[in-house]
Parts: sequence; C-alpha cells; structure tokens
Amino acid sequence: MPVDPARSSRRGAAITDISLDGDSFWGRRQTTNADATLAHCLEWMERLGWLENFDRIARGEVTIARAGWQFSDSEIYKLLEAMAWELARRPDDVLARTYDDLVERVAAAQDDDGYLSTAFGHPGLDDRYTDLAMGHELYNIGHLLQAAVARMRTSGPHALVEVARRAADHVCREFGADGRAGICGHPEIEVALAEFGRALGDDRYVEQARLFIDRRGHGSLPVRPLLSAEYFQDDTPVRDADALRGHAVRALYLSAGAVDVAVDGEDRDLLNALERQWARTVERRTYLTGGMGSRHQDEGFGDDWELPADRAYCETCAGVASVMFSWRLFLATGDVVYADLIERTMYNIVATSPSVDGRAFFYANPLQQREPGSTPRAGVNTRAEGGVRAPWFEVSCCPTNIARTMASLPAYFAAVGGDALEVLQYAPGEIRLGGFVLRVETRYPDDGRIRLTVIDAPEGMRTLRLRVPAWARTADVAVSGSAATPVAPGWAEVTRAFTSGDTVDLDLDVTARFTWPDDRIDAVRGTVAVERGPLVLCAESTDLPTGVRLEDVRIDASAALTSDGDGARVAATAIARAASAPSAVPYGARTDAAPGRSFDLTLIPYHRWAERGPSIMRVFLPVATAVR
Amino acid sequence: MPVDPARSSRRGAAITDISLDGDSFWGRRQTTNADATLAHCLEWMERLGWLENFDRIARGEVTIARAGWQFSDSEIYKLLEAMAWELARRPDDVLARTYDDLVERVAAAQDDDGYLSTAFGHPGLDDRYTDLAMGHELYNIGHLLQAAVARMRTSGPHALVEVARRAADHVCREFGADGRAGICGHPEIEVALAEFGRALGDDRYVEQARLFIDRRGHGSLPVRPLLSAEYFQDDTPVRDADALRGHAVRALYLSAGAVDVAVDGEDRDLLNALERQWARTVERRTYLTGGMGSRHQDEGFGDDWELPADRAYCETCAGVASVMFSWRLFLATGDVVYADLIERTMYNIVATSPSVDGRAFFYANPLQQREPGSTPRAGVNTRAEGGVRAPWFEVSCCPTNIARTMASLPAYFAAVGGDALEVLQYAPGEIRLGGFVLRVETRYPDDGRIRLTVIDAPEGMRTLRLRVPAWARTADVAVSGSAATPVAPGWAEVTRAFTSGDTVDLDLDVTARFTWPDDRIDAVRGTVAVERGPLVLCAESTDLPTGVRLEDVRIDASAALTSDGDGARVAATAIARAASAPSAVPYGARTDAAPGRSFDLTLIPYHRWAERGPSIMRVFLPVATAVR
Repeated sequence: MPVDPARSSRRGAAITDISLDGDSFWGRRQTTNADATLAHCLEWMERLGWLENFDRIARGEVTIARAGWQFSDSEIYKLLEAMAWELARRPDDVLARTYDDLVERVAAAQDDDGYLSTAFGHPGLDDRYTDLAMGHELYNIGHLLQAAVARMRTSGPHALVEVARRAADHVCREFGADGRAGICGHPEIEVALAEFGRALGDDRYVEQARLFIDRRGHGSLPVRPLLSAEYFQDDTPVRDADALRGHAVRALYLSAGAVDVAVDGEDRDLLNALERQWARTVERRTYLTGGMGSRHQDEGFGDDWELPADRAYCETCAGVASVMFSWRLFLATGDVVYADLIERTMYNIVATSPSVDGRAFFYANPLQQREPGSTPRAGVNTRAEGGVRAPWFEVSCCPTNIARTMASLPAYFAAVGGDALEVLQYAPGEIRLGGFVLRVETRYPDDGRIRLTVIDAPEGMRTLRLRVPAWARTADVAVSGSAATPVAPGWAEVTRAFTSGDTVDLDLDVTARFTWPDDRIDAVRGTVAVERGPLVLCAESTDLPTGVRLEDVRIDASAALTSDGDGARVAATAIARAASAPSAVPYGARTDAAPGRSFDLTLIPYHRWAERGPSIMRVFLPVATAVR
Repeated sequence: MPVDPARSSRRGAAITDISLDGDSFWGRRQTTNADATLAHCLEWMERLGWLENFDRIARGEVTIARAGWQFSDSEIYKLLEAMAWELARRPDDVLARTYDDLVERVAAAQDDDGYLSTAFGHPGLDDRYTDLAMGHELYNIGHLLQAAVARMRTSGPHALVEVARRAADHVCREFGADGRAGICGHPEIEVALAEFGRALGDDRYVEQARLFIDRRGHGSLPVRPLLSAEYFQDDTPVRDADALRGHAVRALYLSAGAVDVAVDGEDRDLLNALERQWARTVERRTYLTGGMGSRHQDEGFGDDWELPADRAYCETCAGVASVMFSWRLFLATGDVVYADLIERTMYNIVATSPSVDGRAFFYANPLQQREPGSTPRAGVNTRAEGGVRAPWFEVSCCPTNIARTMASLPAYFAAVGGDALEVLQYAPGEIRLGGFVLRVETRYPDDGRIRLTVIDAPEGMRTLRLRVPAWARTADVAVSGSAATPVAPGWAEVTRAFTSGDTVDLDLDVTARFTWPDDRIDAVRGTVAVERGPLVLCAESTDLPTGVRLEDVRIDASAALTSDGDGARVAATAIARAASAPSAVPYGARTDAAPGRSFDLTLIPYHRWAERGPSIMRVFLPVATAVR
C-alpha cells in the first residue's frame, strides 16, 4: 500500500487486496495504463534524453546541454513507482526486465555519498543545492523514495531500494538538525521520507520529514523575481495557515507530508490545523470536479470563492496530490468526507486526464472551453491547458502521475478500522481484506446498485461499513434479501455474524440532478451544473444542433432532466437564443432576452469531453432569465 | 504632438495648443506629475542602478552583475519623453538641466555604430541580438526614438535627437531589407520608427517600420518554453488577424505602429483589418473601465467574453497603449467611437493607476478585489496586482508610462478635421487650435455642463464639433443663449460664422446609471455596475456598515440610485445577506436566499479606490435574486 502509518485510525488496503474486473470503469483504465501508458511514458523520456541524462552522469560527461527541466529525473522515478505497483498487480517478465534496466541506469548515476541528480553537482552543471527554491533536487529524491516504497511493499528488496536508502541517508546528513537548515522549493521530500521511514522502520527519515515541515513558512527560500513566498508555502508555518494557498501541487504534497508527520509524531495540533485547512479549502477553493488550483498564474490556488470555470487550472497532478492528502486524513481520522472528495476527484479529474488509449493527457482541467483546442504541434502541447489531450507536455509531470495512480488505484477503495471493513469506492471485483473475502458486483457509476456477496468472513460479530456519498439524495441498504432500509449519507453500517453467501445490497440514487453553485462563487453565478452519481456532466459543442452556438444556450431549470434507458445519456431542456446584435461595448442599458427555440441539450460525463475532437464545452450552464 | 501623420483624416492638437486649468481633474494630475512623479521615477532608477548601467557601459566596465531587467533602458527613455513634454508645457530650468544631464549619460553609452544597449553587446553581456524574442533591444530603441520625437516637436534639436538618429540608422542597417530578417519580441520599434520618420521627414524610418510589421506573424521568433507565438503576435500576420490576442501591451503597441504604416503607405486593407480588430476587441475583450488584458498568465488578452472581474489584469501600460492605438485610428478615420474608448480608458485606467501624491501606482487594475492588498515590502510590490498602489514594481513599466501620458494629455483632447475644430475631451482651460481660441468652462466629469466661449475665431463659416459620448442618455446643445437642442451620441455640430463672445453650451446627462454587462460575459452574469458620466463607480469595504461583508451584499436594481447635492457621492439600495452556513462543498441543491437587511451602499469612482488603505472592492455588484 502507498500509505501505511503505524498509528492511525484506519489501515488502507494493499493493492493486491483488491482486484478489479477488467471490464469495468476503473478496470479498463488499469489495463490501458499497463498496456499503453507505461511504455508511452518510457518512449517519450528516452526520446527526449531524460534517461540519457543518467547515462551521461554515469559516464562523467560534461553535461552543459542537459535535456529537460531540472525536475525531469522525477518523471523516471514516478514511472518506476508505477511499474512497481503494476508488477504486483499483474506480474510480467518483460516489464520486470525493463524495470531492472531502468534501475541500473539510475543507480549508475548515483554519487558515492548517495547524492543523485542529473541537473546539479556534476561537471558542466551548477553546484549541489545552489538553487533550493527552483532546483528540485530534494523533490526528485522524494519521488525516488516513493518508487522504492512501492517496490519494498510489493516485491521486496531491490537495487532501487538501496539507491533510495543511500540517497535518503545523504539527505539526512546534508539537511539534518546539524546540517544546512534548508528546504526544497517544491515539497515532496517530506511525504516521501515519512513513508520511506515507515517502510524501512527507521524513524530517522520521519524525523527528517518533520524537520523540513517545521522549517517551512519562515521565508527561508530566497525571493525569486515574480514569485512570492506564498507560491512556495514559505510565507506561513504549516500549523498556522488557514487554507491551502500558492502553487497547488506544492501545497498539497506539503499537506500530505504534514499529515504523516502529525500522525507519526502524535501531533494533534498539527493534524487539527490540516483538517481545518482541508475543510476551508474544499468549501471555498475547490471545483465541482474536485479540481484545485484556480489560477494559471503560478499554477496556484486563488482567494476564497475565486473559482472561474474557463480559467480553472485544476492541474491533473493537483488532483493526484489532493487524493494523497485526503487519503492520509481519512486514515488518520476515519471521516467519510475525505473519501467523498476522493471519489469526486477520481471520477472527474483523474479519469478525465488520460485519453481512452492512454497515450495522451490533459494537464489542466478547465470546466469551460470557449474556443476549440488545437492539435499540438509535434505531439508536444505547450501547456496542455485543455481542449486537446497531448501525448507529452513541456512540463510533463501528469502522465507519470496518472500512471502511478492508476496502477495503485485499489489502495484507496477500502480500509480496515478496528473490527470493521470499510468499503469506500465501488467497483466490481474482489476485496480480500480484514478477514473478509467479498465479491462486488455493480455497474457503478452508470448504475447505483452495488451488491456485495460474502465469500468468506471472519468468525463472530463483525461490521461492514459502506460509504454513502454525500451526493446521494436517497440510498438504501438490504442485507441478504431483507427489506431495504433507507440510509443517510455517511456510513451504512451492517453488523452481524457474516457467513458465506450473505449479500449486502446498497442502492444509491444516481438519477441526474441539477447542482447549484454557492452564490458567492462569482464566476458561475446564474448557472447550474448537472451531475449523475459521482459524475459531473458537461455540454459539448459536438452534440449541439446545427447552427446553435454554446454561448447562446440557456437552461430551463424548471424542466426535468431526462435520461435514456440505461441512464448513460442525459438531456436538459434548453433554449437556443438568437445571436445578439453587435455592439460597440458589451455594457449598456438592460435589454430583454433574445427570443429562442427550445431543444434537448445532450450532456455527457465531463471525463469524456474532447474525445471526439476539439470542441467548445461547459460544465456550468447559464439558466434562462432576462439578460441585462 | 505625439502623432502627426502626413496623410490623415484629422490632425491632433499639439500639447501647447491646449492648456488645462490647474484646479481641475486633469490639471491637478498634470501638476502632480510634474512636481512629484518625474522626480520619483528618476530617484528609483538612480537607486536601482538603471542609470548607472549607462555609466558602466560608457566606462567600458565588464557588467556581468547588471542591474534591472533587459528592458530597464526603456524606462529612462520614457522618462526623457515625459520630461520633454513637460518642459514644453511649463518650462523649468532645473528640469531642463536634469534632462541634459540624463541625455549626456545616455549618449556616452552609445557605440560608434549607433547601437545602444546596457543589456547586450558589451563585455560581460550576451552578444547583440542573440535573444530577439525576449531581449528587448529594439523595444528599448523604440522608446528612445519616441523620446526624441517629443524633444524635436517641442524644443527642437538636441543631443538626444542625434543619439536617436544614429540608433535608428543602426536599426535600418541591421534589420533593413538587406539585413537580418528579424523582429523584436516586444513591438514598439514600429510605432516609434514611423513617428521618428515623420518628425524627421525621412521615409526610410517609416519603411523600416513597415518591414517589421510585414515580417511579423510568420513564426520567425524562436519558440520559448511556456510562451506561444501568439504571446508575441508572431502567429498570424497583422493584416490577417481577427482580434487582438497574446500579450496585451505587445498587441496594442504593434497595432498602433501598424496604423501608422497603413496610413503613411495608404494601405487601406491593413487599416480596415485594424479597424475590424479594434471593433472585435472592444466588443468582446474589453472591460467596462476600458481595461484590456484578461489574463495574468502571459499578461494577455483572453478569448471572446473572457472578462473576469477579479483576475482582470488590465495593465496600466495596456491602457496607455490602447489610447495610442485608438488615437491613431481616430486620426485616420475621424470616427468618434475611438474617442469614446479613449475617454473610458483615461478616466478609469490612466487616472486609476497613480496615487493622489503621484508617487505610487497600480500595475494591474482588477475590477474586483477579494482580499485587502498588503503594503509592499521595502517599497517594491512584486506585481502591484491591485489592492495597494506601490512606489515601484519588479517590472516597473507603468510609472514612466503614466508620466509621459500625463505630460502629453491635451494632445488627445481636440483635433482639426478639414475646416472643423473637434473637441473630444472636456476639461476647463483654453484651446488654441484651427484658428479658434476657445475658453472651456466645466466641472466635468462631476458635472455634465460644458461651456465653450469663443475668444477668437477664424473668418467666415466654420464648424465646431463636440463629441457626445455614447453613454449620454440625453444631451443638448445651445449656441449663444439660443434654446437647447437635443443631440444624439456622436457629434454635436455647430456651423456658423463665429465671433468673439459666442458661446456653445453642451449639457450631458451624468446622472448615475445602472450598466448591465452582456449576458455572454460569464464572469459577471447576474451583476450590475453603476456609472456616472464617464466614471465607472465601485463599492469599497471601507464604506460598508459595520459587520457587513461585501461578499454578502446584493443590489436591489429595481430601486433608483441616489446622489447627494453635487453628485459626487452615489448610493444604491442594497441588501446585506446573513452569512451562509458552512458547507462541505459549495455545490448542492437549490436553496432560498438568506434573509437580509436593506441599506444604502455608497459608491465611489473606481479611480479613487484603495486611497483610504487596503480594501475589498467590486465594480460589478450581484443583483438580489434567489440563490442556488
């Protein structure tokens, strides 16, 4: 499992504790990840010279013309992490050899004292740790440690683990209590050291993570032109902040590591601070999709209620990082709200980024696209800001982050708390955890009916807890054919002496529904969204009647939403307004709405947008009222 | 005058043709500019070493640790331009000596072949023209030429003009038809060369400007990480574009230069293209304030209808550049719409940036501030993004742009078209133009009554045209005490044989009014703004009753706006809602609006916001309707 704190309210599933049916929402994505995405990432990194960087260091070459950004090493490590999870999920000799070869190339570049970087500290490059703010040296090492954790927790010892241990020891020597009091501009080393320490049973690493967390927020990073201390979360100590701020991925990785430190150190104040920050951030700085990061500028969080649909950044990596943060808070507290956000983020960010073939990705995940995206030149999209998934980006952090998340997905699906098995996310397959063996049958999220059949169960009275999502307006549960009982959002709890053949049926109402944004979110005032189960839906120009432009479409929210037979296709009653007459400036006296004709507006899952080519898209749809 | 095309529909005023009364809206600002801003800019540039850069080049020092950005030279040139206009407006020996000293330091840094740069081409620096995309070498020279034009057109020959001539000749040799086919990443050289050529009567310079315009849009600038060809307007040739796009100041300077080239070359197609682009940009990509640039990211224009209030960039320099573009189109066509936009921009961007004391400035001019700004550390504000005016910025292009605009302001106030004198902007003072001498009396914009008294007039039948702004719901004109006649927006035209003592009274209705945004502007749907005459108003937290937060304020747009005696203080009927209860996520089922209490919401001119300390501010105010 990716996260395994010693002292925690819950213990998560190991990825081998749950197997997903191949022909299911997540099962298909895991297969695509294994069959296409891993090789795709490797090909690109080989082609761009990011792997050759290691070879050149190993050969002692002067590497002035180094390929890639200063954080490119981390992409290889994230891929190694993905491969380790995948090798546990579905062993494969070819993949195992590729993995070994990669590790060998990485290991050859390590210095005798454990330092490992292809961007600093070697002939032709700047000296070690001369740019803590943007150098990403510790960030890279962090991803190396996470890759090693994945290996240790699945197939056991490996050369990579030794490389990681030497790198971690180097970090502790260099940045320990008696070393230089620095921090890395991009958090990641903290969460990685904590888990590496847990995996190796060595508290030194967790302690080093605590040092990094405590040092942060005192303005120690040098000021950079046009970047603020807030960007680096170096403006305010972690335990004193009110909400997440600055660069979103940085803030979320940092928060995840801070939870680890709080839990292992039994630091209740710090944990409380992180729970408060999570709550405030989710209430006021988070998109309907679970996406975080309102600003392209600095890839950062915005102010409270600053949630523009069109310029939503919602970086895919921030979605991954949000899952990491929420998962750690869930393990620490057992509060179901964290699993609710994980579901929202999984279905609407993590599932949105990769293309069906697993060879192209969104970097940013806006909730509105005003102009159709253009196909990236030469395969590389400058920012992959939306509109068209791109095979690779200039800053190509998302593909490997998707890869490692997809490969380790079931880790977030169930947990054990005390005597109880808790099922958090619903996918068909088998759960072998907490003494239970359960068969899960469902067409979720297309259908809200989930059946758990007990194949094996521990002796005596036990509890099975099923998460009832906050979005479910009605839900009921039935045990072994008994009458269904309504259950409220939170936990549906079944306590009994389970025996083989017992069934638990959970029925969640996934009928399409209107969702209204808080009126303080200026950017989407006067609009409504449509959701179906955990899925955010959207309107895409691809589905519009000829001659209708999305900017002229208004929703009749007084009319019911309709669905076809299996609910996969949802439609809203809409009005296509006549185009407005041109005006000198778009501000003036109040005018009546232009007349319009009514039509059925098709809505599709947001995660499927732009699959049929570049399009105009909206999640939040203006409602029909008078205009100006 | 700053712009004096040989072939044009109109001829603008020279700045000495119009004098403004000192105790007036713009007169006070001109005085502050002369008495405070010029010295303020000089002090900062001396302190930061931007002037020392020239001295070091002159001394032949190796300048590896050069101070400032690669475009810092341009700030000295913009200040020289401002000083030249100011010396013409109000001669001053001390200022004249300061000017001469500055020019001497600049001149000493010029190479024998005319090249002039403190950032390239000398020991310790990169070679000349090795970074056309971001080096700004030609951009800097452009501002040097504009400074020289200001000197030539006011006090005549000067050492600076010779420095500029040698620099311009160098540019023509280096980048001429037989030279390197490069362009500068930041347009400016084009508009500068055109005017320099006009001022010297030398077509070579205008021809060089034409070459630069024609070369642009073919992707010749090297691709930069994370910057697109669109950022540089190098994606599409000027004559083929539909709307302004990319970096706003770049786009607007380029467009201004393209108008010059079109006019001097009688290139009707190019002029038509620019008029189309202006119309589209103003209709769909321009703020109520006249501000341009919707994105912090790349300081750029957004897509059509992408006009967020909170993240509006609306750089002050883009406001200045927009005035430059519109003014050239007005001179070319005589269309009053261009003067309308100039007024909107002058009162709501140009007047907003500087503080009352002329020693602090806004860089960005958002229409909503969600959190109070913080006072800049050590006087320098990283971005001066709003909330607090800052004495100087990291990229401090706006202070000197304000300085040169304030010093040359009356140039945009009147013009001659054929036999007619056209008065475009209203300010008390004297106009001596087209054979007329007119005394202007008005308290505009506080009051809409403007009286023009003829002191002297040319013989025979003549026409006086007065601009009636598009915002004026009613307006009338009365000649020498005759009955007032209603006039529509556009021109109020009076043709007669004028004699001394004749009066023309224009009365514009400046009563406060609600202004509704086009319903396609998503970011401000469900809101209304208030304007009064040419002034955009705003609500500032400073004026709220105790305990009321601006995020909970809703406007009752069915109630009339009220004004006190002299109209300076406007109030709207508003409702202060009770604060919402916290929620897990800010999306859910529809709820009724929280109850609220009614109160009078004070509105002040936008250009005065943040004068009383950091505040929360909104221009677009949500109207009271049901929420979710």
